[in-house]
Parts: sequence; C-alpha cells; structure tokens
Amino acid sequence: MFEERISRARNRMEELGVDTLLLSVGADLPYFTGYTAMPLERLTMLVLPQDGEATLVVPALEAPRVEERPEAFALRPWGETEDPVAIVAGLAGRPARAAIGDRTWATFLLGLEEALPATAFVAASRVTGPLRAQKDAAEIEALRAAARVVDAVALAMRERPFAGRTEADISRELVDRMLEGGHERANFAIVASGPNAASPHHEPGERVVELGDSVVCDFGGTMAGYCSDITRTFVVGQPSADLVDLYDVLFEAQEQAVRAARIGVSCEAVDAAARSVIAAAGYGDYFIHRTGHGIGLEEHEDPYLVSGNATPLAPGHAFSVEPGIYLPGRCGARIEDIVVAMETGPERLNEAPRELAVVG
Amino acid sequence: MFEERISRARNRMEELGVDTLLLSVGADLPYFTGYTAMPLERLTMLVLPQDGEATLVVPALEAPRVEERPEAFALRPWGETEDPVAIVAGLAGRPARAAIGDRTWATFLLGLEEALPATAFVAASRVTGPLRAQKDAAEIEALRAAARVVDAVALAMRERPFAGRTEADISRELVDRMLEGGHERANFAIVASGPNAASPHHEPGERVVELGDSVVCDFGGTMAGYCSDITRTFVVGQPSADLVDLYDVLFEAQEQAVRAARIGVSCEAVDAAARSVIAAAGYGDYFIHRTGHGIGLEEHEDPYLVSGNATPLAPGHAFSVEPGIYLPGRCGARIEDIVVAMETGPERLNEAPRELAVVG
Repeated sequence: MFEERISRARNRMEELGVDTLLLSVGADLPYFTGYTAMPLERLTMLVLPQDGEATLVVPALEAPRVEERPEAFALRPWGETEDPVAIVAGLAGRPARAAIGDRTWATFLLGLEEALPATAFVAASRVTGPLRAQKDAAEIEALRAAARVVDAVALAMRERPFAGRTEADISRELVDRMLEGGHERANFAIVASGPNAASPHHEPGERVVELGDSVVCDFGGTMAGYCSDITRTFVVGQPSADLVDLYDVLFEAQEQAVRAARIGVSCEAVDAAARSVIAAAGYGDYFIHRTGHGIGLEEHEDPYLVSGNATPLAPGHAFSVEPGIYLPGRCGARIEDIVVAMETGPERLNEAPRELAVVG
Repeated sequence: MFEERISRARNRMEELGVDTLLLSVGADLPYFTGYTAMPLERLTMLVLPQDGEATLVVPALEAPRVEERPEAFALRPWGETEDPVAIVAGLAGRPARAAIGDRTWATFLLGLEEALPATAFVAASRVTGPLRAQKDAAEIEALRAAARVVDAVALAMRERPFAGRTEADISRELVDRMLEGGHERANFAIVASGPNAASPHHEPGERVVELGDSVVCDFGGTMAGYCSDITRTFVVGQPSADLVDLYDVLFEAQEQAVRAARIGVSCEAVDAAARSVIAAAGYGDYFIHRTGHGIGLEEHEDPYLVSGNATPLAPGHAFSVEPGIYLPGRCGARIEDIVVAMETGPERLNEAPRELAVVG
C-alpha cells in the first residue's frame, strides 16, 4: 500500500516539476510510510527524491520507535550534537524545486531555505492533497466506522437531559461517550448553548443550559487513524417559531448541498447549493463559514467546499457538509454529516437523525 | 502583565533589528496576549510591529472566541473568501526583517515570503526564547504546582503492582492519576519496560512487565497552562548487580548536573556535568540524548542543556535535568527533575524519591 502511494506521489512530483518531497509533522508522513513524526523541536523529516531512495532523518533517541519501518525508506538517525537541517539538505541534493509538508515548523523551513539557497520551496499539499483526498475502499470503511461511533453518541444525546447542566459537563459526556464507543482520541467536543450557539467554534464553558436554548454539539475524534466529525443541534423544550423557521431553512440547505455533491460538480457549487437556500430565506449574512472540509487522517484536509474552489469532486472524495445559521447574541444552529462522493452518487456516512432534537 | 511582556519583546526586537513579530500557533501568542491560536488551516496570526499597534488576524468564525482580549491588540477577523496571508502582509507593512513563530505552519511562511519578497524572515524564538525562558515568580509557582501533582503520582506508583500488567495499562494509570491530581491535560506517559526501556521515547504497548524488568516511567501534563515532566525508574523485584551499578552511576550523574546548574554556568557545562560522570563509569556510549530542556508553557523550550549551547543560566531559567543510560536489547534507566536556577542556587521542583523503586 505504502509503495503504491509513494509511486503515485512520484508521478505527481514529475508532473509538477518537484524534485524532492520533504515531509515532517502532519498526516502526509504516516500516509506514505506508516510513521508519524513527533511534534518536537528535534526534526524528523522524510526526504523523498522524485527518483532515488527515500530516507527518514530521525532523532537518534526516536530511532528505536521506527520498528516496523517499511522497506520504502532508509533510516538516518541523528545525534544530539548534529544539525538535522544540514543532514536533510545534504540528502536532498540540490533540488531546483522542493515540496515541504504544510505543517512543518517554520523554523525548519527557514533553516532549509538558508541551507539550499537555490531551491524553490512549495507546499507539499500541492503534491499530496489530491492523492490523500481520494479515499480508497479501506479508508472509506475506516471513516464509516468512526462515523458510526459519533452517530451513536448523537442518538443517545437525544434522550439525555441538557437543562441545568454546564456546557463543559455536556462536553465531557460527549468525550467519554466517544472514547467508550471505541475512539482512540476525542479531538474536540463543542457544546455551544443559547447566545453562545452563535459562535461556531465556541469553547464549552460554565454557562448553564436553560429552557429555550438551542445547543449546538459538534464533536469528533480519531479511530484507527481516521477522523469523525458530526454536528447536531438540540433545543431545550419546545422551540420558538423563529427557531423552527431557521432550522427548516438550515435542514433544507444541508439536504440540497448533500444532493449537489456528485462526482464532477465543483466544490464551490456544493457550497453555493447550501448558501443559496439560506440566502433566499434571508439568512445569508448569518452563514459565516464555508460549507465543508475534506476529512481523513486529518480533521480538515482537501477538498474544501468553499467559494473560489473550482476543483471538481472525484470518486472517493470525503468531506463534511455543515451549513450553519448564527444570530449574534441570540442563538445558532448547524447540521453536519460526512459525505463521500461515490460513483452511485453522494453517500452520507452519518445517519443519526438530523431533525431538531427536543430535549429536557 | 501582557503589556509588560510585549514591551520587553519590543526592546529585544529593536536590539535585533526585527521590524515585525508574526505569531501564530504555539506558546508565544498566549504568552504575550493570553489568546491561543487553533492549529488549523485557517490562519490566526498576531502582527506586532516594533513600533505601532498590534493586530490579531483571526478567522471570522473564531472572532467570538477572542472574548477577553487585552487592550494590547486590535482584531481583524477575516471571512472565508478573503486571503489571510495578504491581510497579514498588508498589516506588516514592508518590514526589512520579520520574525515568525517557530511552529507556524510552513505553508503560511511560504505565502508570506511570496507576499513580502523584500523581507528577511527569522525564527521568532530569537526574540521570544530568552524572554520566555526566564520565569517570573508566578510562573515558577505554576511549575511547582504542576510538579507536585506528578510527584504524588510517582510516589503512589512505588506502592503499585507492575508485574503482569501491560505497559499500556500502567500508562493509562499514570494518565488517570495526573488528571485526578488536577492536571487539565496529560501530555505523555511513557512506560518502557525490560528491553523497551532502552528506547527513550518508547510508546507503551502490549508488552507485559516481568520480574527483573527495569521500567522507565516518564510522564507529564499541563496545569493552569504550565507543564510538568518527571521520570522515575522502577524495578520489579530485587535488581541485578548490573542494574544497581548502572543506577548508582545515573543517580550520581543527575545529582552532579543539578548541583552544577547555578546562575552564570553555561547550559553545556550542566550537560557535561552529567555526561562526565556517566562516561567515567564506562557508560558514555549509552547516554544518547542531551541532559535537559527548558519547560514552561511548552514541554520543551529554551534553554536546552546540550553540548554546543554556551548560553549562561539566568535567574528563573526552568529546565529538566534528565540523564539516562540505555543498554540496547537489555534495559535502561532515567531520572528526571525540573530544576529552576535561583539566586540561592539550583532548586528542584520535583521531590519524589529518586532512588530505584523496587515494586512487585
């Protein structure tokens, strides 16, 4: 699997005129090798020439961790008094163009630019983004398994009390349920209630949920390396007529965007499908973010469903569809599913009920 | 507090000829503003001119999170179809030299380099590292409080059974105890047993601890923003004569390094103090990492106790002293305390017993 992925990366490097791929922290390295770099000040970097042997430059004290290394790369452990940037530069040769992992620390890029003054650097996602975006069957199955876990959590929350509890308390319950459900890690568990629900990335705090609140719960984690991400909106007691109206619009917008997400349709057209429903209902100014993001080994990756992204959807593209409407100081709502562009049409991986959930 | 820190940063910028400081993910931004950037593909960046108003460029959907922003900066929320790199470049003016946060994603540095072709970029740690390294009284108290928690965990583990349990199981216990002790987050909990103890950054796995094993436990977390980090070595049943000998050397090396860590002594001299004891006993080839790292808002930060670092210790420098001896395929041991360079001499923040702990 890794060899085939590396082979595809090399083809793309050739197309783009990239001589060397340099991968450090982030998901590119495990995608191509199975090895994950520790996010530390000691540099770990894979040097992958377009043509020639790949080498993993790794701190000597971490070399024993590279146990089941694939045959795909050689190891170059570096000692504490060596300069890893100089080692990478030496292994890279004198590339005219090198692609460096998007999340590589700036300090290492600065060092490499100094060590390789004749090299033009570009972001590695130009090479890796389109490859990683198209999931194979095993990856889709991993995303599906992760989605099932958060679906079960979302379903269970419909029967749980919300009123009188703090956002932080409900957030902890979401985390606990994700871990009990088999996630290795909970990545986030946003609980935004009442006026806080108008803040899409609200940090759950000590606010106590009250009767009449809408409560946006957006949570996800990682299972077998792949991410989950779901949003459901709850209301404490019977919703106001205003909230019912807003939610009906949102529900329709999410539905239309999912239906639009067919192979060959541009990312921005999917965004527009949600946005036009919301705008037509008069809520256009209150949908303040893109419609979705790709998902896989990372929570957010290519493709992004945003105005300006003309990339056509391709088979295996996996992404969130998550329009929201936020009324500052009052309330908010969001609905999010993970969707895969399949030959047979868009397929939702999340199946938990999307209707506004009335809770106590 | 933030204003005073920013004022010191500006003085240092002037000394170094840095016109603009650009801070994104990592601990610099919260150190100077109290705000932490989300590690996402949507750029958050503080633009801090040497002279003039600072501005936080932040994704519009996260702007509501910047609630208690200090008066120290203005806000510039950016919408989903705007280019945040262009906004930062515009706010930066045309600096001859800009310092960019060490952990900023490479992809953003590449964008800024393109947008500001006449600007020389340097790592922000040149400005911020020495400031952050010298902790004030409140920071030392925060480190001490965090150290007390892991001390209690280390002490409790001396009475716990090890044999017959997996490394992963013991690691989970360390995590649970850190959280019960008041840590907001457990950052790592290395449990390396038997031959695995020869791998300094071993990932705890399914190996079952056996009679005769040495077990290195290296764990830490975060409390009120500041990090803890401690290592203690356990042995299951009575230790072999070889392990006793090795551990005596290690104990003495750690003691000598702590004693050496006086204000004015160079970082590399502290490293040498540990290394010379270990080398004199014939274990020199088996101490394969530096003696320590600074600690504060980040697990690893300036100053680094490593050969080649001639920086003299200054009042308030806080760092780990953690020599180790690793015999490949056989066993390993490490002892780690956090130490602060005080006017009165080096002060250990960790006080859990350092003697080899015999466990069942």
